[in-house]
Amino acid sequence: MTTGLVLSLDAMGGDHAPQSVVDGAALFLKGRRRHVRLLFHGDEALLAPLVARHPGLSAVSEIRHTDSEVDMSAKPSEAVRRSRGSSMWNAVHAIKDGEAQVAVSAGNTGALMAISKVILRMKPGVHRPAIAASWPAPSGYSTVLDVGANVDCTPAMLVEFAVLGEAFHRALRGVERPTVGLLNVGQEELKGSQVIRDADALVRAAGLDMAYRGFIEGDDISAGTTHVVVTDGFTGNVALKTAEGTARLVANWMRSAMTGSLLAKAGAALLSLGALKELRARMDPRNVNGGVFLGLNGVVVKSHGGTDAQGFATSLRIALEMADSAFLSEIETNLARLAAIQDNPDAGAGEPQKESA
Amino acid sequence: MTTGLVLSLDAMGGDHAPQSVVDGAALFLKGRRRHVRLLFHGDEALLAPLVARHPGLSAVSEIRHTDSEVDMSAKPSEAVRRSRGSSMWNAVHAIKDGEAQVAVSAGNTGALMAISKVILRMKPGVHRPAIAASWPAPSGYSTVLDVGANVDCTPAMLVEFAVLGEAFHRALRGVERPTVGLLNVGQEELKGSQVIRDADALVRAAGLDMAYRGFIEGDDISAGTTHVVVTDGFTGNVALKTAEGTARLVANWMRSAMTGSLLAKAGAALLSLGALKELRARMDPRNVNGGVFLGLNGVVVKSHGGTDAQGFATSLRIALEMADSAFLSEIETNLARLAAIQDNPDAGAGEPQKESA
Repeated sequence: MTTGLVLSLDAMGGDHAPQSVVDGAALFLKGRRRHVRLLFHGDEALLAPLVARHPGLSAVSEIRHTDSEVDMSAKPSEAVRRSRGSSMWNAVHAIKDGEAQVAVSAGNTGALMAISKVILRMKPGVHRPAIAASWPAPSGYSTVLDVGANVDCTPAMLVEFAVLGEAFHRALRGVERPTVGLLNVGQEELKGSQVIRDADALVRAAGLDMAYRGFIEGDDISAGTTHVVVTDGFTGNVALKTAEGTARLVANWMRSAMTGSLLAKAGAALLSLGALKELRARMDPRNVNGGVFLGLNGVVVKSHGGTDAQGFATSLRIALEMADSAFLSEIETNLARLAAIQDNPDAGAGEPQKESA
Repeated sequence: MTTGLVLSLDAMGGDHAPQSVVDGAALFLKGRRRHVRLLFHGDEALLAPLVARHPGLSAVSEIRHTDSEVDMSAKPSEAVRRSRGSSMWNAVHAIKDGEAQVAVSAGNTGALMAISKVILRMKPGVHRPAIAASWPAPSGYSTVLDVGANVDCTPAMLVEFAVLGEAFHRALRGVERPTVGLLNVGQEELKGSQVIRDADALVRAAGLDMAYRGFIEGDDISAGTTHVVVTDGFTGNVALKTAEGTARLVANWMRSAMTGSLLAKAGAALLSLGALKELRARMDPRNVNGGVFLGLNGVVVKSHGGTDAQGFATSLRIALEMADSAFLSEIETNLARLAAIQDNPDAGAGEPQKESA
């Protein structure tokens, strides 16, 4: 695209919107040479003065006025019925209209998912979209999905998540053959819930030509044992927030350790000249803020509702990477492979695929 | 008890047993003035020379020989049928026989739970026992249960976990009125699975005279928002291991931050004189190693299977605290209260029963 990429933003979604959205966008643009344009959807009277504060941002932005927004506590079904014309609706619709390549919102997660499904529709072969999160690991990032879209999952849905997540990781991280694991409470096949065991059997039977590693456990996520971690939205959401909480607790401990005594302060000062800053950046959840919706005909990124400008800027960086990547075509290739196996079981491992839904 | 407490140990359970068990016991005894006796169950030919290396331990220990042990990968049902006379079986049986007050094992979790249920029996009113873990929080520790005994939970089981966990926390941590939360993916009542929502309604309807705080999220665990965190065994186990993995990753980052450059090394050296040691100790999962089985007629502590001597020593410390506490009577009081409410629903709400049905 010669005119550069266009990001469509729900400027009114999130606890600190629209300030965090506009300031986040300005932060995101800083030092970026590539031409990117931004569409802000929301209350123009509020947005115009905020955008005007940042001349660089102003030059590449357009405000699309609406005075309707989706309530943070609205039920998804309600949101779909009542949200036509809201900032969230319009932000997603801009993708369908071909005006933008990716939409970003820090608003109500359930509503954003429901609206995205209605407007963009799911890719053929996908029962329910999933949210994928990037998770810090010793070398680079792991991908964890689902982290909140689907509280109850069938084995067939978990197989789809594996297919979606593998394509996502290859597109975003450039790993040719990402390894995939299924989150469980034990590595032995006899452990875990029936759904997980059935999903494991289903992946193996499907013969997906995927580097599937079987069951992994909670401590494997941060260890980076596999590139892609597949789980239901309840477990994934709890795991993600638990990790964030643990990192926050440890950061607080570090802070108090480094301000406890004069000696400690001197030590911390020396460290700050070196690697401490990087360590803090690595531990900051704002630097991995952004869940990507997988399985839709388009790219939608969900920022944490409570994030600030820095966290929102990270979501925009992820959105840009996604829009730039071969993500949608990778997903299509994987889904076509899954469909081929389902239509013609002999194409896979030779075992007929049973769907237990 | 004038002769002091007796701890009964499965000397053969765990990846590094019996070495880690014996060395852990020696570490546990170091500097302890209180009189404690230890029963080691396992292969005498292996155990005798290991125990003999520690004169202090030798003086208070007794080896009970058996050459049978429970396989780490045995199914629970199998373990119960085949494990009579094994080191794990005998360790738990010593409680029933009145020889010991608490049993500790680092062996197969499912087998230990099944054996404990068969030998000690559940307390009246408990459907399934739970495993409670202590979790570091800004001030002291939170209690999280279940962390692995029950993969699938009904709402009624989650209510029992709340009752068990509240009594456990009061007994072990000395908090008069511990707060209790139910782990979910969102604080709004409309979020989460049906089981969790039903459990929430059940706790509220029961009128338990408990400081129940409703739904909490994964990041609340380390924030210490509530004293007791109630969840099913699948989610609890994943959360616990995810937190351990996160702490390990951060510890590795810290290590590399502090050895990266000469300046960083100097800074770290200064810090080591101060609070860094304490920080490292706080982040070491070995220092919170020990899950306590709740709901049985007796106290059984499960150590992590992969732990070393230091981690096993922590489990023994937890076991001693439990044996010393009013834990079993606290649980009985709470269960009696639950039973009274179940028999007479009006008793819970504090209103006199005016009409007989």
